[in-house]
Amino acid sequence: MAETSRPAGPAILAQNQYGKAENRVVRITRDGATHHIKDLNVSVTLSGDMDDVHYSGSNAHVLPTDTTKNTVFAFAKRYGIESAEQFGIHLARHFVTSQEAIRTARIRIEEYAWDRIGAEDGGHSFVRKGQEVRHAQVFHDGTSWQVISGLGDLVVLNSTDSEFWGYAKDGYTTLPEAYDRVLATEVNARWRYGWTGGGDAPDWDASYAEVRRHLLEAFAGTYSYSLQQTLYEMGARVIGERAEVDEIRLSLPNKHHFLADLTPFGLTNDNEVYLAADRPYGLIEATVLREGREAAIPVDLTNL
Amino acid sequence: MAETSRPAGPAILAQNQYGKAENRVVRITRDGATHHIKDLNVSVTLSGDMDDVHYSGSNAHVLPTDTTKNTVFAFAKRYGIESAEQFGIHLARHFVTSQEAIRTARIRIEEYAWDRIGAEDGGHSFVRKGQEVRHAQVFHDGTSWQVISGLGDLVVLNSTDSEFWGYAKDGYTTLPEAYDRVLATEVNARWRYGWTGGGDAPDWDASYAEVRRHLLEAFAGTYSYSLQQTLYEMGARVIGERAEVDEIRLSLPNKHHFLADLTPFGLTNDNEVYLAADRPYGLIEATVLREGREAAIPVDLTNL
Amino acid sequence: MAETSRPAGPAILAQNQYGKAENRVVRITRDGATHHIKDLNVSVTLSGDMDDVHYSGSNAHVLPTDTTKNTVFAFAKRYGIESAEQFGIHLARHFVTSQEAIRTARIRIEEYAWDRIGAEDGGHSFVRKGQEVRHAQVFHDGTSWQVISGLGDLVVLNSTDSEFWGYAKDGYTTLPEAYDRVLATEVNARWRYGWTGGGDAPDWDASYAEVRRHLLEAFAGTYSYSLQQTLYEMGARVIGERAEVDEIRLSLPNKHHFLADLTPFGLTNDNEVYLAADRPYGLIEATVLREGREAAIPVDLTNL
Amino acid sequence: MAETSRPAGPAILAQNQYGKAENRVVRITRDGATHHIKDLNVSVTLSGDMDDVHYSGSNAHVLPTDTTKNTVFAFAKRYGIESAEQFGIHLARHFVTSQEAIRTARIRIEEYAWDRIGAEDGGHSFVRKGQEVRHAQVFHDGTSWQVISGLGDLVVLNSTDSEFWGYAKDGYTTLPEAYDRVLATEVNARWRYGWTGGGDAPDWDASYAEVRRHLLEAFAGTYSYSLQQTLYEMGARVIGERAEVDEIRLSLPNKHHFLADLTPFGLTNDNEVYLAADRPYGLIEATVLREGREAAIPVDLTNL
Repeated sequence: MAETSRPAGPAILAQNQYGKAENRVVRITRDGATHHIKDLNVSVTLSGDMDDVHYSGSNAHVLPTDTTKNTVFAFAKRYGIESAEQFGIHLARHFVTSQEAIRTARIRIEEYAWDRIGAEDGGHSFVRKGQEVRHAQVFHDGTSWQVISGLGDLVVLNSTDSEFWGYAKDGYTTLPEAYDRVLATEVNARWRYGWTGGGDAPDWDASYAEVRRHLLEAFAGTYSYSLQQTLYEMGARVIGERAEVDEIRLSLPNKHHFLADLTPFGLTNDNEVYLAADRPYGLIEATVLREGREAAIPVDLTNL
Repeated sequence: MAETSRPAGPAILAQNQYGKAENRVVRITRDGATHHIKDLNVSVTLSGDMDDVHYSGSNAHVLPTDTTKNTVFAFAKRYGIESAEQFGIHLARHFVTSQEAIRTARIRIEEYAWDRIGAEDGGHSFVRKGQEVRHAQVFHDGTSWQVISGLGDLVVLNSTDSEFWGYAKDGYTTLPEAYDRVLATEVNARWRYGWTGGGDAPDWDASYAEVRRHLLEAFAGTYSYSLQQTLYEMGARVIGERAEVDEIRLSLPNKHHFLADLTPFGLTNDNEVYLAADRPYGLIEATVLREGREAAIPVDLTNL
Repeated sequence: MAETSRPAGPAILAQNQYGKAENRVVRITRDGATHHIKDLNVSVTLSGDMDDVHYSGSNAHVLPTDTTKNTVFAFAKRYGIESAEQFGIHLARHFVTSQEAIRTARIRIEEYAWDRIGAEDGGHSFVRKGQEVRHAQVFHDGTSWQVISGLGDLVVLNSTDSEFWGYAKDGYTTLPEAYDRVLATEVNARWRYGWTGGGDAPDWDASYAEVRRHLLEAFAGTYSYSLQQTLYEMGARVIGERAEVDEIRLSLPNKHHFLADLTPFGLTNDNEVYLAADRPYGLIEATVLREGREAAIPVDLTNL
Repeated sequence: MAETSRPAGPAILAQNQYGKAENRVVRITRDGATHHIKDLNVSVTLSGDMDDVHYSGSNAHVLPTDTTKNTVFAFAKRYGIESAEQFGIHLARHFVTSQEAIRTARIRIEEYAWDRIGAEDGGHSFVRKGQEVRHAQVFHDGTSWQVISGLGDLVVLNSTDSEFWGYAKDGYTTLPEAYDRVLATEVNARWRYGWTGGGDAPDWDASYAEVRRHLLEAFAGTYSYSLQQTLYEMGARVIGERAEVDEIRLSLPNKHHFLADLTPFGLTNDNEVYLAADRPYGLIEATVLREGREAAIPVDLTNL
């Protein structure tokens, strides 16, 4: 498979490009107790002197797309992420100047914004700006009422104060214990009111706002040894603080943020650069109930 | 096709339910110049004495799902939408008490929240709470730079100050002219900076925030005779106010909100109850350019 | 609002286009007892002499996007749909030649393919080519086993042999009775095996293939007076034919196909041209059970 | 953090469960030159004696979800995948019998089906059963015509005959060279016809069927040293075989299938068990042109 000229026939290679799309990089910066977060989806596209790889399969001019992925994560450490545009400039300059065969680089970035939970300008707890959806379900059989309210698509993240160790191990266990990890989840909650008709119904809007607030504050305020513990704290906070709620069901996918391994590039990743993974994900679900009541929310939250 | 008993064989009907899912109802309330908006996705599920329709196809006990849809829109007018839960209670009570064959009703509602544009507590312009995504694209060929920034998924709505009339008509035209309509769109914008390297680059974050603000304010502040006119005003505002921007491309789907026809139910719909439609949708796209410059953003925004 | 020249300021209108995106048109052709189906998603984009509508809001040159939608449906009747390309040619020619202000037309079409159910080259029952997903759920508590198999995303359509009339009516009913309608649904099914461990387990792959076949054949072969009746027939067929299955749960969204109203254009729609609607949709769900057994599949199929 | 009893307050833990969702495992079995493929999405859910982890954060009873993921991949090697149900039975039995604290296991599996390309019962090339979408775009400016046809969402896979080595390396390169890898992509193609009006137009349906066939056969028949080479072969085949086509643009995401590392479990993965990854992905795009013609299809295929 030597470098060859164009194969016989009428077909010519015209414009071409290649690269690695959708590198999901999250950069945490710690400024004392105040953390900052940048959350990007970075796509790299390169073009240049690429006839041989198309005509003969010779890869001599091809910087692997895997290498461009590594570069994205390494640069997040090396330069930080001041803005999406500035980060793109660092990357584009690097590819065009470091590889002779590469003539142009195009970097596309999507950025997702986060707000702080609680403290306006401090802390390490965040809620992603997003389309939180409010849910309500009313069931009536002619005599009694059941009202279940809820929320979904509320993504939250603690950039510290989370550990995971001391778990059961068997012959298939390879996970190393963690003493300072990112904990992120998408809160899906449904809570059932004690009201079944008659008397005064709850103030639905006020109740929703308060339950939402308690869920966020309990997530942010819990020093976590497992997502199960955080889940229980969130549910118990609502049961303890809102007398009108008898039961709450929580479904919390563990949105894994893996520390990028930067050691091959001579860099130390001091809890700064994470790869946000899609699948698979842990999924933690439980019901927290007021003592003396019966559970009634279906176990599979996707029902509601 | 008389009512029949169960067909021969070992198969018995067990739990069953039916209804109309995902009725997208938007309710506008006008309080003088201040409008309020409620935006719901309502699913109705009914059950009761339904053996015959399964065993023989006799529909005598079946209130059509189309009727339940009509009821959702009529009730939005009749009772307003105080909260999702209260609206669900009105609906569930109605179905169980008005049809003898129907024994239970379950109403599920998703609610989408909106913020006001501009005035904190007045006006008729709204932006939907949601996952606005920021975009950045950097292109470099070894000598010069091109930076395009943008945003997507930013849904906005004016509940008045929009007309559409005086358009071309042919043999396929059935649309009635409108003198007070809802105008809603999802802003997808990309703008190109004049900067091509050398000298001071723009302050990317500050520029993004200002362009976003001008887009929203121009949308809210334009009395509209067509979405094309609103689009141009949005682009011209950015070009006029932000010297660092040379070109802006806007892609604006016309998210149609149709007035629900309530006359069959003896109700007048005074610009209060709308059906939010999915497909098809108008799609308006254009580039607004600084005089003396050349356009460079690709015509198809979905590129970026 | 007279026609005006460009507003003062540095902003010029550059490339622009408009149109109606995603018109979902389904065309049935009846060749005796053999029906043919074409299923398209058509997007129309026009451009031309459109400065005034952007600069001043004058719509005199604007053929409404609603009119372009009407044209798509009328042309499906007038010309039929020989191929997506040929249909696009009819539309593009029409817009450019019939409106002086319109200089170019671009028609984009997506086409979805269907296979016949049963008869290779006859009949009126179809299954959409698609990513049918097979489901399996195994539950074990240390002593007994529960196995539930299923399928999803299987879209089927009968182009005749479906009626809907004789239903309950109330003050919110406007639906006209139908004596020959399209019946289409997306089959979501889960069936539970009688096997709970011990003895021979079923042949899972063979059982899946047979249940799938019976579901399709029962859908195709039932003359339908309601989707509930068709659902029961599908479930009863499986229970009757497959001794290893004790229970089957079906969730059938009624994928509405509305007859396009072509009378404003002097055309008769003889069950030929349909608008495929997205939302809202009827949703019919039930469990069919082997006599003497207990139901165990959760009522909400979205669980599984 | 010793094991503790329930915290003070009214909140009790009720039903709870946890696990790893959406493990995407692909199993290749080589039967001489004939390969077989099973493609699953496996979700594991466990429950049992889990009060402590919720109440106090003690993980002593918690088998990590990461371990359950490892088990899925190891079992795909150890037992193979005879059917989804049988694979689920192996997994459920393992979790309940190997961990004392775990009382129930529920395994949910989605399976995606594949057809063979070419040989009915031999070979190593597959096309995923799915909703391939046909595209057509017609553009007309009053004088000439441009017709572009295409297809999307066509997923193909070669389970051998693909290598990747000899590429450029820099300080960020960690990828090992591969001499026998899975090559999978989702074909997105658009081709432009030479016809611009006048004379006989192509037979659109016949042309579509033939281009599709050549794309599949070229993918299956190319011994690949890079996806770029495969792309060129696919395009060149169409240009060489179909005189009516002047240009074809291909966009091929590299759908990475990573060999699962089974060495920690004492197992050898002899190109049998793969993890199908979502993001990031390589993206290879190019135009192949008939000699002497000008390219006209937009570079960004997402346009069309």
